[in-house]
Amino acid sequence: MATRPARKNAPQRASGPALWASVGARVRDRERKRDAVIMTAAKAFRERGYHNTSLDDIASALKVTKPTVYHYVENKEQLLFECFRAGLKQIMDGFKEQQDSQATARERLAAVIARYAEAITSDFGWCMVQAENQDLSPAMSRKVKALKSEIDQGLRHLIRDGAADGSIRPCDEKMTAFALAGALNWIAHWYRSDDKLAAAQIAQRFIELFDLGLQPR
Amino acid sequence: MATRPARKNAPQRASGPALWASVGARVRDRERKRDAVIMTAAKAFRERGYHNTSLDDIASALKVTKPTVYHYVENKEQLLFECFRAGLKQIMDGFKEQQDSQATARERLAAVIARYAEAITSDFGWCMVQAENQDLSPAMSRKVKALKSEIDQGLRHLIRDGAADGSIRPCDEKMTAFALAGALNWIAHWYRSDDKLAAAQIAQRFIELFDLGLQPR
Repeated sequence: MATRPARKNAPQRASGPALWASVGARVRDRERKRDAVIMTAAKAFRERGYHNTSLDDIASALKVTKPTVYHYVENKEQLLFECFRAGLKQIMDGFKEQQDSQATARERLAAVIARYAEAITSDFGWCMVQAENQDLSPAMSRKVKALKSEIDQGLRHLIRDGAADGSIRPCDEKMTAFALAGALNWIAHWYRSDDKLAAAQIAQRFIELFDLGLQPR
Repeated sequence: MATRPARKNAPQRASGPALWASVGARVRDRERKRDAVIMTAAKAFRERGYHNTSLDDIASALKVTKPTVYHYVENKEQLLFECFRAGLKQIMDGFKEQQDSQATARERLAAVIARYAEAITSDFGWCMVQAENQDLSPAMSRKVKALKSEIDQGLRHLIRDGAADGSIRPCDEKMTAFALAGALNWIAHWYRSDDKLAAAQIAQRFIELFDLGLQPR
């Protein structure tokens, strides 16, 4: 088979491992830029509200054009969803980190609560808690509900495991999961990033309360 | 002094106690109608969202004209505020009911939690939790925050009283109040009126969890 003669002065193309390194770098570069778009949107939605923020606002905060933003997300709704997903991913990572742990279920639950508080106090907190209230399309609403349900099921699972390994007092797992998630989600309503308490300290207080209860021992 | 002669066929007017009874009846009638407007608005806001509900929708649900609705509230924002206030009043009533109680602070807190759960599962629940997220005017936003702060202070007060009378384990009163309010407010996000659990049962599960904690005793 005839090989095409190299054009004179044609730019040198990377090949083999070098080619892949360069593809890898481009993918990483794209991911980094996409993350920046999502992070900027999360901040803007939290500060101004979803309906008061346009893709133009986000583009100008990033000092790029609106088509550049469209290169990473289809529309504003998808952008809200990506912010929501980025926050929830941190909680899901918390569950995954505990998967192979030998600790009791109550200790694993405490570790998840700490990650949860971290996610909710981050810039994604507002989107995680408010996404569902923003007149989403039915399809998007279903996706949001499905992801939230994963977190809920994860919490219930740990509570069940705790009843089995004896580390958690037998209780109504659904109501307990709702109370935990409620207390944690509500942080997004009162937390200000200049708050004196860091996420780790808030989590510590919550874990103590949920562990020990109010009744003196 | 000359008395004006009664006009022929003039309608008989009530006087003395009868007049006051009739004023009282008119005031009660006005209050009942105003309550109906607020209740209908609360339902509509919860079902369709605040921004998707017009005063026309509320008027037509009540089978009255829009000017009739304006007779009871100045504008839609004030209507949202009245819904918010009606819900919060139920919680404030819960605090008042406990004012002269001889029970321990932990028992009084449990009684307040029960009233709180009742308010949040009512039609006012959505407005109580969502009012602040609806782009309120700065003046209205301050009124909403002030009322919420009363509830927060009430919870902290009971927690402090409990540390003093020994019924509540010494804890961070601010974080504990936030965790309690968060778990309770979050009910508005997941509760459906056709839910199998009534408000009283939800409150019972929450009180048990907050009283005893997760760690077996």
